[in-house]
Amino acid sequence: VVRISELSRATDVSLASIKYYLREGLLQPGSATAPNQAEYGPEHIHRLRLIRTLRDVGALSIERVRRILAAIDDPGQRRHDLFGVATRALEPDVTAEPLPAEEAARGEVDAFVAALGWEVRPEAATRHELAQVLVALRRLGREAEADVFGPYADVAERLAAWEVSTIDPSEPPSVAVERMVVGTVLFERALVALRRMAHEHQSARALDDATPGAGSEARP
Amino acid sequence: VVRISELSRATDVSLASIKYYLREGLLQPGSATAPNQAEYGPEHIHRLRLIRTLRDVGALSIERVRRILAAIDDPGQRRHDLFGVATRALEPDVTAEPLPAEEAARGEVDAFVAALGWEVRPEAATRHELAQVLVALRRLGREAEADVFGPYADVAERLAAWEVSTIDPSEPPSVAVERMVVGTVLFERALVALRRMAHEHQSARALDDATPGAGSEARP
Repeated sequence: VVRISELSRATDVSLASIKYYLREGLLQPGSATAPNQAEYGPEHIHRLRLIRTLRDVGALSIERVRRILAAIDDPGQRRHDLFGVATRALEPDVTAEPLPAEEAARGEVDAFVAALGWEVRPEAATRHELAQVLVALRRLGREAEADVFGPYADVAERLAAWEVSTIDPSEPPSVAVERMVVGTVLFERALVALRRMAHEHQSARALDDATPGAGSEARP
Repeated sequence: VVRISELSRATDVSLASIKYYLREGLLQPGSATAPNQAEYGPEHIHRLRLIRTLRDVGALSIERVRRILAAIDDPGQRRHDLFGVATRALEPDVTAEPLPAEEAARGEVDAFVAALGWEVRPEAATRHELAQVLVALRRLGREAEADVFGPYADVAERLAAWEVSTIDPSEPPSVAVERMVVGTVLFERALVALRRMAHEHQSARALDDATPGAGSEARP
């Protein structure tokens, strides 16, 4: 049990940020020990680290962090829907009115997802995101159809099947939702970084191939 | 050839934003036809669409967009390094001093990348990003080693090998760099969206499994 200054040191979160999270209700209040003084426990340390991860690594807004924490604190009782709770809490709001080009692309994305046989909510923000990517490709002059996403969908399906299989069904719901949210945010960051690393590696291989004798070892 | 107001309509970019990009030097000036009046061509339309894609879909800062555009405008002559040019232009700056926990994790990430046999620059920001993910996992109480990234690295390697093989070697360098940058930004967005969709689909399957008779079709 620690004072707010030690909480700040233990979590590397500034006093100003801790006070802001307390005011915003993202961090539960400590136990009052005197007027204007409170003590904080391990649950506060964990919550602050979670907020920091979602903010710094996930680059999520305060509003989205609030929604995620609400889902973790009250995940509901339907165990089979915990992934859905995590998915919806992570989902950005789609507020902008779609442009005509986006509506057409959206129909193509819907057909693509249906052809995959995937059960995804009609209102899922991910459908909108794929449509945006398709529109952006076309705006930049590429003749892309929705099946340009095929190889990525294959990879995502195999990865997700493995990821879901690693979930421990005996965990309490709030722990499970936190684990799913954290896993989604952190491993999507890792996946993106690894894809860029792999691009760099392939580029280095191409360089070696183009410069006979420059490689230090034989390559397949 | 169009006036600035038509340029705005053609690209869905506001006049204020166009003027800002002109001031910042991200958009090349039009041809002056009179004092305070200029005309813009297809190259301005394309450049504005590119800026908008990097800003809206890629969520990149003005400074990073500026660096990317500089790489596209002057990619250099070494054809085999075009992927490197694109990679470095996209790279975020690592400015924060690493915490002690990050330095330890960084050593583990370096060993992991070496074991993969990947050629990645020692100073690549992606190494730092993976170390951050590892630190965040541990802060939240997971006993993660760097090999937690193994399945993601496998997927990234196969995806990148295929992506690199689709590059047309006869394209002019600036077109190739733009294509690589746009492909990296847009398809990482698509990959992340598809992984989330696949999670939702797996969750729906689990729901069907848990509710006999609820599924409308037999599943494998």
